[in-house]
Amino acid sequence: MAVTRWVDGFTSAGVAAGIKPSGDLDLGMLVTERPATWAGTFTRNAAAAACVKWNRAHLGHRTRALVVNSGNANACTGRAGRDTVEATAAAAAGQIGCSVDEVLVCSTGPIGVPLDAGLIAGALPAAAGSLTASVEDFSRSILTTDTFPKVSTTLSGGASVTGVAKGAAMIAPNMATMLAFLGTNADASADALQAAVGWAVDRSFNRLCLDGCESTNDSVMVFSTGAGPKLGQDELRAGLLEVCSQLALKMARDAEGGTKLVRIRIEGAGTEGHAAELGRAVARSNLWRAAAHGADPNWGRVLAAMGTVDRQLDLERTSVAIGDEVLYSKGEPTGLLGAAAAAMSGDEFAVSVVLDQGDAAAEILTADLSEEYVTLNAEVTT
Amino acid sequence: MAVTRWVDGFTSAGVAAGIKPSGDLDLGMLVTERPATWAGTFTRNAAAAACVKWNRAHLGHRTRALVVNSGNANACTGRAGRDTVEATAAAAAGQIGCSVDEVLVCSTGPIGVPLDAGLIAGALPAAAGSLTASVEDFSRSILTTDTFPKVSTTLSGGASVTGVAKGAAMIAPNMATMLAFLGTNADASADALQAAVGWAVDRSFNRLCLDGCESTNDSVMVFSTGAGPKLGQDELRAGLLEVCSQLALKMARDAEGGTKLVRIRIEGAGTEGHAAELGRAVARSNLWRAAAHGADPNWGRVLAAMGTVDRQLDLERTSVAIGDEVLYSKGEPTGLLGAAAAAMSGDEFAVSVVLDQGDAAAEILTADLSEEYVTLNAEVTT
Repeated sequence: MAVTRWVDGFTSAGVAAGIKPSGDLDLGMLVTERPATWAGTFTRNAAAAACVKWNRAHLGHRTRALVVNSGNANACTGRAGRDTVEATAAAAAGQIGCSVDEVLVCSTGPIGVPLDAGLIAGALPAAAGSLTASVEDFSRSILTTDTFPKVSTTLSGGASVTGVAKGAAMIAPNMATMLAFLGTNADASADALQAAVGWAVDRSFNRLCLDGCESTNDSVMVFSTGAGPKLGQDELRAGLLEVCSQLALKMARDAEGGTKLVRIRIEGAGTEGHAAELGRAVARSNLWRAAAHGADPNWGRVLAAMGTVDRQLDLERTSVAIGDEVLYSKGEPTGLLGAAAAAMSGDEFAVSVVLDQGDAAAEILTADLSEEYVTLNAEVTT
Repeated sequence: MAVTRWVDGFTSAGVAAGIKPSGDLDLGMLVTERPATWAGTFTRNAAAAACVKWNRAHLGHRTRALVVNSGNANACTGRAGRDTVEATAAAAAGQIGCSVDEVLVCSTGPIGVPLDAGLIAGALPAAAGSLTASVEDFSRSILTTDTFPKVSTTLSGGASVTGVAKGAAMIAPNMATMLAFLGTNADASADALQAAVGWAVDRSFNRLCLDGCESTNDSVMVFSTGAGPKLGQDELRAGLLEVCSQLALKMARDAEGGTKLVRIRIEGAGTEGHAAELGRAVARSNLWRAAAHGADPNWGRVLAAMGTVDRQLDLERTSVAIGDEVLYSKGEPTGLLGAAAAAMSGDEFAVSVVLDQGDAAAEILTADLSEEYVTLNAEVTT
């Protein structure tokens, strides 16, 4: 069932501000009825956009409004970029009737292109005038090369959590070019929210590795009205993880140029972190992702990718399967390939590696590398 | 002027052993008249091929012959793969009249495919019977998806150095899927050779980053007859670096699917190592390499790539130019793009980053990411 509404206490809008040359929706606004507690995790890229720095500086404050534009990342845009963020926050504060410090700002799109603050200020009245409980227009307004909006919801401990995200390209560990905004009525402190969102992101968006590029603008932010039940850390984590995982899966299915979802499962690892690290190495391998595109069960590229990050990997204790077919078993090729090739020809398959080192496991999501990915990203955007 | 001959004291051959389905040359043999001193650097991949382990175990021994096959990496092939290496060394020793421990073995091609030792043993007599001072057939026999043979030569301190290499794909720092074999008449100890080759590889092949994948089979080996002048470490390093740099440049120009050479220059760094690390981050960025393919002067992707490996990078002190046009100057976009786009439309261009941190610099070579790269690597090879 498609999710259509925010949790009570949230409203949103999406309008066309003229930032995208196409004229598509490109300005979203998410507003809380009352000042909300919030927390977030952000890109660690040193070239982080001005809006990321603005939001980081406002962690700990309560918030009333989030303004998001697509079609321009406002990253690496110097002083003018910083001025645009401040002007956007001021304009939104005027529309909502709150203080400038209660407004958060996100951007996504090409890097290094000046963003006209006037376009945003000009469209904010229309956004503020069309706020609704529906997620529809907001979820569309934040998209870039995504082909569908991404919305998920869950219940945890009696509290509701709803999230909206955009993904598509530049998806790497540490959440590259992705935005996700979660609203909940859970009653939780900012510190509790921060701990829970960091934990959940590490096990969801940070297990998504599409093209190995970490963006300047990634942000996952969670807003809480506090009007619902008080949640302990476990319930809070469970609720955020469920929504983040659902959104991450939708991003993987909508990878830029991707034609199939690839689940990389590393089992029998000493620690979950090591399992995730090995899985990401496979997901970063252009050679493996190209093989995935061609439905070539090239398990050797899986081993080669892992061998570059774990120099001590013991092949004699390592096995690789694609679908249900074991292709490499504790140091020896099995000679099987047929069922693996068949499994790879669908729109989703899993490659499973068993390490025989311990009991920990992790699953990394990626997509195949297609000619279309190159074509999309070779287009002149500036 | 094309290099056509080895240094005196070396002969080689290249024959078709039937490993490549195409029937092309796929078995090379390099022989020294007398036992030669040798040194080498090898992949650090934990999934290193059996032949790499064989060669590593023979470091410190003198050598008479090197056998190289293309069309099959003999990597991740288990016990059978190890047996094939031993059988190959034994067969070559029989042909040359040397001990098994005087034979080194290299392989390149698809991973995880059984390599029939009988094909090699069957073709070695023809190889041994056609040894010649020419590099021609040998340089062709080691190629995989390369489009031309790679040979270079130089003089240093009165000694000659000639090298032959193959590259094409899976080229990353730490020398992924590349083989290079250098012959010299310099009089040098194995230890001196080892120190010099490590130094030279670090400044040549390890500054080449084509698709970020590090192979199971990379090897750079240098053989010395000792019949020429005695070289000090500086002269030895200079000679090896010159040949390795020339070969690395040829590999970059012949990158799999690549249509242009991209020089990534990082200047004003605190250390040469840091400059190289930042350059490699740019070279690993699929988004930047796709932009290079489309001649899109997307300098923001350069900054974004560097910002993921240097979390403290200060954009206010960083500038980026493509060709001669400065696109970003100490924190501010210049608004220029036209000359940069023109520079990128040729078959070679440079992107220069100035950090204002110190006096160190490094240049990393890469190529653009094309649709053809994906097509080539999506083909079923196993």
